[in-house]
Amino acid sequence: MATPHDAFPNRHIGPDADATGEILATLGYGSARELAAAALPASIAQQGPIGLAPALDETEALATLRGFAAKNTVKKQLIGAGYYDTVTPAVIRRNVVENPGWYTAYTPYQPEISQGRLEALLNFQTMVEDLTGLPIAGASLLDEATAVAEAVQMMARLNTKAAKKDGVVLLDAALHASSINITRARAAAVGIPVEVVDVTADVVAAREDALVGVVVSNPGTTGGVRDDLAEVIAAVHGRDGLVTVACDLLAQVLLTSPGELGADIAVGSAQRFGVPLFFGGPHAAFLACRENMQRKLPGRIVGVSVDAEGTPAYRLSLQTREQHIRRDKATSNICTAQALLAVVASFYAVWHGPQGLREIATAVHGRATALAVGLSEAGLTLAHDRFFDTVTVEVQDAAATVAAACDRGFNLRHVDDTHVGVSVGESTTDGDIADLLQVVASVNSSVDTTSFTAQDGPLADLLRTDDILTHPVFHSVSSETQMMRYMRRLADRDLALDRTMIPLGSCTMKLNAAVSMEPITWPEFAGIHPMVPADQAAGWWELIDDLEDRLAKITGYAAVSVQPNAGSQGELAGLLAIRRYHVANGDDQRTLVLIPASAHGTNAASAALAGLKVVGVKNAEDGSIDLDDLDAKIAKYADEIAGIMITYPSTHGVFEEHVRDVCAKVHATGGQVYIDGANLNALVGLAQPGEFGGDVSHLNLHKTFTIPHGGGGPGVGPVCVGEHLVPFLPSDPWADVTVEPGVREGRPVSAAYQGSAGVLPISWTYIAMMGDEGLTEASRMALVNANYISRQLADSFPTLYTGENGLVAHECILDLRELTKQSGVTAADVTKRLMDFGFHAPTLAFPVAGTLMVEPTESEDKHELDRFITALRTIRAEIDEVIAGDVAVEDSVLRHAPFTAESVIRDDFEDAVSHGHFSREKAAFPVRTLRRDKYFPAVRRIDDAYGDRNLMCSCPPLEDFDIDAHAESEN
Amino acid sequence: MATPHDAFPNRHIGPDADATGEILATLGYGSARELAAAALPASIAQQGPIGLAPALDETEALATLRGFAAKNTVKKQLIGAGYYDTVTPAVIRRNVVENPGWYTAYTPYQPEISQGRLEALLNFQTMVEDLTGLPIAGASLLDEATAVAEAVQMMARLNTKAAKKDGVVLLDAALHASSINITRARAAAVGIPVEVVDVTADVVAAREDALVGVVVSNPGTTGGVRDDLAEVIAAVHGRDGLVTVACDLLAQVLLTSPGELGADIAVGSAQRFGVPLFFGGPHAAFLACRENMQRKLPGRIVGVSVDAEGTPAYRLSLQTREQHIRRDKATSNICTAQALLAVVASFYAVWHGPQGLREIATAVHGRATALAVGLSEAGLTLAHDRFFDTVTVEVQDAAATVAAACDRGFNLRHVDDTHVGVSVGESTTDGDIADLLQVVASVNSSVDTTSFTAQDGPLADLLRTDDILTHPVFHSVSSETQMMRYMRRLADRDLALDRTMIPLGSCTMKLNAAVSMEPITWPEFAGIHPMVPADQAAGWWELIDDLEDRLAKITGYAAVSVQPNAGSQGELAGLLAIRRYHVANGDDQRTLVLIPASAHGTNAASAALAGLKVVGVKNAEDGSIDLDDLDAKIAKYADEIAGIMITYPSTHGVFEEHVRDVCAKVHATGGQVYIDGANLNALVGLAQPGEFGGDVSHLNLHKTFTIPHGGGGPGVGPVCVGEHLVPFLPSDPWADVTVEPGVREGRPVSAAYQGSAGVLPISWTYIAMMGDEGLTEASRMALVNANYISRQLADSFPTLYTGENGLVAHECILDLRELTKQSGVTAADVTKRLMDFGFHAPTLAFPVAGTLMVEPTESEDKHELDRFITALRTIRAEIDEVIAGDVAVEDSVLRHAPFTAESVIRDDFEDAVSHGHFSREKAAFPVRTLRRDKYFPAVRRIDDAYGDRNLMCSCPPLEDFDIDAHAESEN
Repeated sequence: MATPHDAFPNRHIGPDADATGEILATLGYGSARELAAAALPASIAQQGPIGLAPALDETEALATLRGFAAKNTVKKQLIGAGYYDTVTPAVIRRNVVENPGWYTAYTPYQPEISQGRLEALLNFQTMVEDLTGLPIAGASLLDEATAVAEAVQMMARLNTKAAKKDGVVLLDAALHASSINITRARAAAVGIPVEVVDVTADVVAAREDALVGVVVSNPGTTGGVRDDLAEVIAAVHGRDGLVTVACDLLAQVLLTSPGELGADIAVGSAQRFGVPLFFGGPHAAFLACRENMQRKLPGRIVGVSVDAEGTPAYRLSLQTREQHIRRDKATSNICTAQALLAVVASFYAVWHGPQGLREIATAVHGRATALAVGLSEAGLTLAHDRFFDTVTVEVQDAAATVAAACDRGFNLRHVDDTHVGVSVGESTTDGDIADLLQVVASVNSSVDTTSFTAQDGPLADLLRTDDILTHPVFHSVSSETQMMRYMRRLADRDLALDRTMIPLGSCTMKLNAAVSMEPITWPEFAGIHPMVPADQAAGWWELIDDLEDRLAKITGYAAVSVQPNAGSQGELAGLLAIRRYHVANGDDQRTLVLIPASAHGTNAASAALAGLKVVGVKNAEDGSIDLDDLDAKIAKYADEIAGIMITYPSTHGVFEEHVRDVCAKVHATGGQVYIDGANLNALVGLAQPGEFGGDVSHLNLHKTFTIPHGGGGPGVGPVCVGEHLVPFLPSDPWADVTVEPGVREGRPVSAAYQGSAGVLPISWTYIAMMGDEGLTEASRMALVNANYISRQLADSFPTLYTGENGLVAHECILDLRELTKQSGVTAADVTKRLMDFGFHAPTLAFPVAGTLMVEPTESEDKHELDRFITALRTIRAEIDEVIAGDVAVEDSVLRHAPFTAESVIRDDFEDAVSHGHFSREKAAFPVRTLRRDKYFPAVRRIDDAYGDRNLMCSCPPLEDFDIDAHAESEN
Repeated sequence: MATPHDAFPNRHIGPDADATGEILATLGYGSARELAAAALPASIAQQGPIGLAPALDETEALATLRGFAAKNTVKKQLIGAGYYDTVTPAVIRRNVVENPGWYTAYTPYQPEISQGRLEALLNFQTMVEDLTGLPIAGASLLDEATAVAEAVQMMARLNTKAAKKDGVVLLDAALHASSINITRARAAAVGIPVEVVDVTADVVAAREDALVGVVVSNPGTTGGVRDDLAEVIAAVHGRDGLVTVACDLLAQVLLTSPGELGADIAVGSAQRFGVPLFFGGPHAAFLACRENMQRKLPGRIVGVSVDAEGTPAYRLSLQTREQHIRRDKATSNICTAQALLAVVASFYAVWHGPQGLREIATAVHGRATALAVGLSEAGLTLAHDRFFDTVTVEVQDAAATVAAACDRGFNLRHVDDTHVGVSVGESTTDGDIADLLQVVASVNSSVDTTSFTAQDGPLADLLRTDDILTHPVFHSVSSETQMMRYMRRLADRDLALDRTMIPLGSCTMKLNAAVSMEPITWPEFAGIHPMVPADQAAGWWELIDDLEDRLAKITGYAAVSVQPNAGSQGELAGLLAIRRYHVANGDDQRTLVLIPASAHGTNAASAALAGLKVVGVKNAEDGSIDLDDLDAKIAKYADEIAGIMITYPSTHGVFEEHVRDVCAKVHATGGQVYIDGANLNALVGLAQPGEFGGDVSHLNLHKTFTIPHGGGGPGVGPVCVGEHLVPFLPSDPWADVTVEPGVREGRPVSAAYQGSAGVLPISWTYIAMMGDEGLTEASRMALVNANYISRQLADSFPTLYTGENGLVAHECILDLRELTKQSGVTAADVTKRLMDFGFHAPTLAFPVAGTLMVEPTESEDKHELDRFITALRTIRAEIDEVIAGDVAVEDSVLRHAPFTAESVIRDDFEDAVSHGHFSREKAAFPVRTLRRDKYFPAVRRIDDAYGDRNLMCSCPPLEDFDIDAHAESEN
């Protein structure tokens, strides 16, 4: 096949033919194919093509996507159930959702080059704290249902006294079914007793068993707003239990906050703050809690610390809680969050401010009230006296009513045979209310909803009286121009893929092609509610089926589910499948999972969540799995072994020769093999986990399949299984899985059946445009690029592990330990110094402390690789100056890095910054190419310890920022 | 009406209610309404509402736009005639066309903060120069037809010998009809004899009259490629004429260039380099010429100069040729160009590189050849033996063939009753060719077009053999990641509205709302060819009719035509209407137009183009029109007066009291009144030019009606007329206007009937979302903001002119002449120093030398206005230091501004930059707020004189850039 210059694989892959030739020459190989064959063990090499349809070009891909879109039908979505009609302000859609400066950013682990998105996430936390009335909030969770499950586990960790007595957690029957089903599954796996009841103060008081806590839904899934929330909370507290309130952020604009009523934890979804329905996701969930609970809070928290000059600076706090450090003792297995969506929701709050949000909430409530009044006057019976936005009404034939409404352009909720629900949204109009009255109650009247105020309505005695969103940031924007500039200013503080390579080992930061990003904001994809009738989402289902089919072909498995909305959830789904498979076979005793020392911490955390116990397997000296130790563990634990979790190629960046043997050994003892797909970018087209021994894998579509990282989410973590595990794939979280035998009965892991469907067109487009050969070539070039970096840096920073052929896989671990010993310069110093070169640092201290793991991916071109190599060689020379005794490490440019523009321009640079040990030019322009288009970090090195000691995770007062204070006094 | 917080007018207008109150308090007015009433003469105050439909919110506006879009039908567009199917690479669409960093930028008159787009435009020029084989190209013209007209005028200016003998210009009958019609109209107005002939060497040689020049079309409008171009050129040169070749850029990838064949000038459209069809525009036209003709070249030229440190730097060259300096002696009246579209086309060339372009051109030609062969084999007769992409074929019934093709999804060209044309495009497939053969010739065969190579085809002996696009920039991008980063890097060098106010007097740089920008890239708008059957563009027509109607209501005129694709073309259309009105009335002698001294230079240049002679009218001391002088001129010229051109409010930024009187005086003498709408942003809802005396106006949709400036275009300049001038509105440039009496018979001024239709949804959305009251409030707030700046800066930089009430209109002229006299600091110094504050400078030296004209617009909020005021006050303090003798002007920070990051960080700052006269902090951070998020210009002050002396208007060799040269040696 002739490959046109413009073929997408040529655009996706960085080095062109000439550059590839130059790279291969330095490595001593004649072709990428030859290098890949040398790197990959012959025993697992894929024998045939993947078997995908021929690759499409950009025009064809867009046409196909428009074909899918045309098969979806956009109606006014009044179904509710956790997903509400909202208006994404165009200024946010264009400048954030459609801007690579935001969507290609990585998780802000390197805070000095992430101050923009950290500020946006801190705004998110502050907004959640204000609206829930609780002082601590995290930077987003995956969805509302898993947030409820996380809250339940958090309560169990906090209320150890009750937990030790096998205390129960009561779940409000008014929670969304998805929250109940997911929480039941998660709690069951870790042994937390859970019971679903109609929660009232009396019910709580009457129970005699130990009470870990209660989750109350307010509003409930059918819209009822409680007037007894304070009493329920008091009753639970009276029994030494904790209270989580699942609430609605827009309702909280009007309602007295859970925090003020005494709740310990609040959870919910921030979707309706401007995030499209996306056929179910991605949406940012939130979790807020009382003071002193933060160390048990799942997920990330942005906090405020100071930099080396004492300037306030943002960072991720309390990382010691996280799964990559605490492994099976972690507070959660969550790694990816919904950063981009939390950013959108936070900007929505900045855009509207408290006044605008109050107007929106009031209008929504006013229209719901008008509808309720009209329905009542027509003689219909409402399910609830008190409601915010959702009116559930008794009808003769719910199906007929829903169908009639559908004909008029509205999707309503089919609650049960005689009830329908109407959730009023931001774009619902008075005319819509009149139409709905007509269709539901045959009432003809025009409606003026402005007369229905919250103060006079059913919620009158439940309204909050405190100010919300009092921080100046929520009062800083009135015009679109201000908003656009604020978002640009924040984006400019950050380094994302649109400016530099982000060579993060294990994170696969590759091109997120513009064409693949376009469909996700088309209304025909973005505007579909996850519970619409199947015919309205025919295009969605077709796209998802096709994507799952392609992923199965690529990985060599029998079937795939895209439901898990993060890699961690894919792991959990896979492990739950293994566990349920054993149970179905009568092997209840298989509860141990073997995990090599080099594994991602998430593996162990996920195993713990799945109710499995972890047995470690040692590494051999070369970094591979110690086969002797594996044999010993297998012999020792035999039929207690549920399976093994391995990553391939390993987290050491090496293709281990014996992976097929490892799999066979575990199979021989009756265990299942879980192959973590985190490193699949080295394998696509070259080897198939489902073929060389895996029973189950999860993938990371936000790594290998080009969903952008979004500054820390969204992610998608499909789970792929062999034929025998298909029945255990995740089922619909809204369905009662025991009813229909034969359908998938695995435990759901995400709130929506199709998880973060909204971003799946990205991966579909990538795969469709790459085709068999493109995907395979991408894998080869990922190997080529990684080996080029490893080889070029061999003299500066030696690679720790290589395969038997001396080659690495798609990433390499640069070992700094000996240099650190000689010089005192740490790997962390190097990451900070790289910022002065305009680079995002590689992965620090994973999987080996004192090292940097570099993964260039196939998308980086030779010029960028060379720029990176030059930077690291220059840094090596700076380290050598320390080793030679020319400068002490604490005086060195390395230790003082990174440098802001201000720090190198200030007149007292010598006194305040360098103390005579280095020049401004050395600090700012270590190589001459930086003199044009230099990126300066927004702050200097951030003091992590200070931030954890002085935890502050809401927006700081403006006066803390020296410059603004001075500005005020200047004007 | 209650105004919701989120109502669009609140988003469009910068100051919120509180800030407006604060501003008005400083000005001593109780409300914006009160201030506006004081500023505007009561004699012209609008008495009633505009009468528009109620304002829509964002959701409603998008829904209405989707409704328009749904009424358009997108087919495969094979009509050709200057508009070809092309594929906009998604990476360019997303990162340029949909990125405010690119589209909100102003014309790069301030080059130090415009290096990014200047580089992109230089790439455009280099690309055109390479493909046409001519050494000088401009930075775009408005469309192909006007480019032909400009070339004809240019030939007349160059060939003065023949022109003096009333020498003729021969137009090739094979030119597009639009080019012929427009050129005829333009040439007739200025008295250049033009004749349309079938141009051959014999025809040229046989003529005996003086020959100014010849315009040859190659390919011709029906696709024929000449094999006699060299002979024709030789024949023309033999008769001392000049030759312009209208050519096709994609064809030029394959064909021997006009330059190599001896042509003097080449023109054409760059549309098919990635710019959507846009229902006719905007598209960038090009004009290239031989060495030593550049001073006669119309439009802008980007050139290379050096900055204060000797670094190569880009700038607009040879501005001395331009209309704002030369007025009626200018080379052209073109002001706005098609910068954004030229940028897109240039990035298309960078993206594809010579290899990719050759593949695209070869594929297009191959498919056309396959079609031609198939049609011939089926017994049909082709119109041309040689063609590039367009096959014109004889059929029995052209209408039936076009209809049949339409049913199959193709739009073909209806050439005449028995000929249809098929123009193969970039996305045409082999399957399409097979379908076309079926539908046109009833041939069933599958087609493999790869066997049809140019070398073996009809063009074999006409192919170019030289390398194209040899500059490294066209070889620098292979991957999408590289492309994305290149575009980001260039954008970051520039200051656009997404980072700062651009307070350019007379340019109205206001918000370009994201929602209004969204529809323009929807395929249902962008993918429509201007010559589709009316039913396929029903949505377009509806939108345009509605927009014209709204504009008529706003201005108080009877009718509007949006055809003029720039303000200059609107002026021309208006003046041609006046001229033709007089002629129709038998007043041929009315050929003089009165133009006040303060007018835009464009006015005079347009008058000259319309064949009118300019009579100046003096200014009174207060800057208003000198009524005595007006009376004197009227008395003197009486019935020779065609009319007067005035700008209102005047270019002095003042509402003149007597405008109604001025209009009446001219009417009394039988003249018409042209009111330039450049300053309409001060009037909308407050006064109507059509009511207070105007017979005709042009508007600038890219000023008042929020089409973004795009870095220097696109613009739209609708012409608005009273009832008596309606017949003289521009007609369809493709139609023979004399045929149907009663239809508009005005001269066309743009290549497409609806001009730059593609960007009209922007203005439609703005007007629809603002409504009567929003538009009126915007005008008031434009006055409020301008008066605030004028008042706050009164002590630092006094305002030159105010109205009788002491108020300015929507802009103010800051008079620096006295300060310059005292200090030597020039207004230009101040513009450069403002860059160090992160500001784009105000308008320099227009309309009065030694001044700055500031127009903040209503979209800037008080914080930004205050930031600007602080900057100018700080600069005033710096000037005072010079006046006080603390520092000599040539040593001052003002004269050395602006400062790049490198300049203030370099270790030898004292020796090389400041020479001890100012500190780094003073240079870089004159106010403390700059210490965060500082923008640094990409280069230091540019040497204008050097650039004009050493004209270089193609990309410089990389070695010229010191940094890259060093980088090479470092690696």
